[in-house]
Amino acid sequence: MAEPLRVALAGLGTVGAGVIRLVEANADLIARRAGRPIAVTVISARDRSKKRPVDLTPYTWEDDMVILGERADVDVVVELVGGADGPALSCARATMEAGKAFVTANKAMIAHHGLELAAKAEAAKVALKFEAAVAGGIPVIKGLREGAAANEIERVYGILNGTCNYILSTMEDTGRDFADVLAEAQAKGFAEADPAFDIEGTDAAHKLSILAAIAFGSKIDFLGVETSGITRLRAADIAQADALGYVIRLIGMAETQGDKLFQRVQPHLVPFDHPLAHVDGATNAVVAEGNFSGRLLFQGAGAGDGPTASAVVADLIDIARSTMGRGEIGVPFSVPVAELEAMAPADSGPRLGRAYIRFMVADRPGVLAEITAAMRDAGVSIESLIQKGRAGDAGAVMVAMVTHEGPESAVAEALRLLDGSASLTEPPLVMQLLGE
Amino acid sequence: MAEPLRVALAGLGTVGAGVIRLVEANADLIARRAGRPIAVTVISARDRSKKRPVDLTPYTWEDDMVILGERADVDVVVELVGGADGPALSCARATMEAGKAFVTANKAMIAHHGLELAAKAEAAKVALKFEAAVAGGIPVIKGLREGAAANEIERVYGILNGTCNYILSTMEDTGRDFADVLAEAQAKGFAEADPAFDIEGTDAAHKLSILAAIAFGSKIDFLGVETSGITRLRAADIAQADALGYVIRLIGMAETQGDKLFQRVQPHLVPFDHPLAHVDGATNAVVAEGNFSGRLLFQGAGAGDGPTASAVVADLIDIARSTMGRGEIGVPFSVPVAELEAMAPADSGPRLGRAYIRFMVADRPGVLAEITAAMRDAGVSIESLIQKGRAGDAGAVMVAMVTHEGPESAVAEALRLLDGSASLTEPPLVMQLLGE
Repeated sequence: MAEPLRVALAGLGTVGAGVIRLVEANADLIARRAGRPIAVTVISARDRSKKRPVDLTPYTWEDDMVILGERADVDVVVELVGGADGPALSCARATMEAGKAFVTANKAMIAHHGLELAAKAEAAKVALKFEAAVAGGIPVIKGLREGAAANEIERVYGILNGTCNYILSTMEDTGRDFADVLAEAQAKGFAEADPAFDIEGTDAAHKLSILAAIAFGSKIDFLGVETSGITRLRAADIAQADALGYVIRLIGMAETQGDKLFQRVQPHLVPFDHPLAHVDGATNAVVAEGNFSGRLLFQGAGAGDGPTASAVVADLIDIARSTMGRGEIGVPFSVPVAELEAMAPADSGPRLGRAYIRFMVADRPGVLAEITAAMRDAGVSIESLIQKGRAGDAGAVMVAMVTHEGPESAVAEALRLLDGSASLTEPPLVMQLLGE
Repeated sequence: MAEPLRVALAGLGTVGAGVIRLVEANADLIARRAGRPIAVTVISARDRSKKRPVDLTPYTWEDDMVILGERADVDVVVELVGGADGPALSCARATMEAGKAFVTANKAMIAHHGLELAAKAEAAKVALKFEAAVAGGIPVIKGLREGAAANEIERVYGILNGTCNYILSTMEDTGRDFADVLAEAQAKGFAEADPAFDIEGTDAAHKLSILAAIAFGSKIDFLGVETSGITRLRAADIAQADALGYVIRLIGMAETQGDKLFQRVQPHLVPFDHPLAHVDGATNAVVAEGNFSGRLLFQGAGAGDGPTASAVVADLIDIARSTMGRGEIGVPFSVPVAELEAMAPADSGPRLGRAYIRFMVADRPGVLAEITAAMRDAGVSIESLIQKGRAGDAGAVMVAMVTHEGPESAVAEALRLLDGSASLTEPPLVMQLLGE
């Protein structure tokens, strides 16, 4: 048997501990499949004295994670520290400059600096791999980059944030309101103490921007993702969607419009018979629609120490195989960075679709006439409308409608006409209906 | 740009034509992703004069598909002829002996001769790839072999035959009986004129045996697959399952039992809240349960010219990338053939589970007592039982039951006790309930 691939691990939180447990538990089969053993040799974390869930005595400690790749006893650095910048980014740069492979689960860093890092990897002819950065344990980067490689991808979309999906499916099951379910999720450890990154859609947007680059061969454009989260959803929205035959899911969606790229993270109404309607709890799922493959669905655990470690070690196995003539490592984004297209963000205006629009309005005469007049004037055709009594909200009434298919610009225009109206007690909430 | 990878295509049916169309339609993006163009150069089929759906004039014709790999103008041979033996097998052997890569969609050949062919590929250090052989356009071979490579796979199972799934979901939607729906499927082209391979489970068994080898690092054992098809299902079974909260799907299931391998293709009752319960029509889906990844689901089109061509060309892109320092070619079954374990077939007897058992019985006193006594004597605990009147079947009555969890051997023993009973008008039908 060949010498082990020597892995340095930066970051010893739950995922780091998961990688250590996995590499130990599955050592034999990993060696058989990779052609050589994979061994964690050096570890690093912010606080050496912190109590950890695994025994760290077998490993060499390195105080400075940035120089892990420069050590002679390290072949690959795995970064599980997180953060778009700071030590993680310094570590990535230094590792590849030292001619070593780099594996990360850090979606924020790849979303913000992926192109720079990929160019470094290409220049140094080393691997830069980030399967764990998108959709946890689901091999969706590989699925898009290699499995669907023969296809022009027309659209890629999915459920990319487990915390949001857990909250939405719990709201659905229990009829409880957002704040209530969030608090419970935090208490149970399913949501962070500071949940903003998750519930405001930023985490999903990071992942979407990475998927889009691979699917479309475009430069990562995180800032081009139109992002809204789930914080404004009410139990009544979910009940209303249910009555119409839909569930609500936070969907990240990317598609090309000519030479432009449309990217959006937004709660959508998903019809009951769509595969994503059955994705519950912290599960993630990604759909890619190829011009020959048709619709491909990848589903699994989107987070957690085991699934994330599974993706990290799959990357390590790919790297080990490449060193044994059993595999070779490609460029990080499927095509070289220099060939990735810079696609301008597409305007959502011309997109055709149906929308759910919910207003909270003052309970007084003429409000419904005002809203429907704005819809008429903007050319929005209403398919169904429901006005619901004032349960709970002092004096406020909910008006929810679903539109016929039309351009998003018409809905935007209607809302512009209503902007500043004294009848509205809060800004309207718009969600697209996901087509079948 | 580098020289094209030159592909010879054996077999010009719908999938062959799909490959030609795909390689033409997506030529630019394939070249960008693969690092070099992929071009079909030489073609071969049984009958040169047959009318084809694509223009074949740009390609060199070769009468003898077996020698395609020996031609100096060919780098890779794609075999889409089918058949476990015959010209396909001769072509595979000759191609790899000539030192050329071989790509196939031929599940029967891989199920029967995959180990011999993989050994040839390893000896010649060439690629042998067969993504299209299992689950059409879904990159599930890659998903298991690479994406889930860090995991000990505990179980792999799924819906592997689109024809059966189309028939079952149509029976479900319409309440019609098997023979009726099959005839319609044949008329529509969703089922072959000779459908035996599909409806008797052989095709699913071919695919399952390939998945199992990759998932467990075991030698392919097609003959070890316990196989039953869907031909005995009645509309009443589907109605009964529905009343209990299940749909019926033909499931291929493989799992390890210590150092033994259990492989079975059988209709199962799938609970409504299981992802496979929502897989309708000709769609395929595969679930792999890894010890770290948890449950991974891969879903998509299981057949058809576009999806199958997508998988074939993904293999070609992997091969092209490997020649350009951009991609991955490993040994065909993830570990070298010499290291694959010969696992004896596991006995189903000790497997714990719940079963649906359906009897067609003569309508006379004492029959129910006879059946329930056999269950009692064999130690089978009945959870629910329904007896249904004689609609349709002259004189015959349906008795359907679901058992509590227990060993499969107990159910087998109960049926042995009833074997030859004059009360039964046909052999009982047993289906396992899929756990959640």
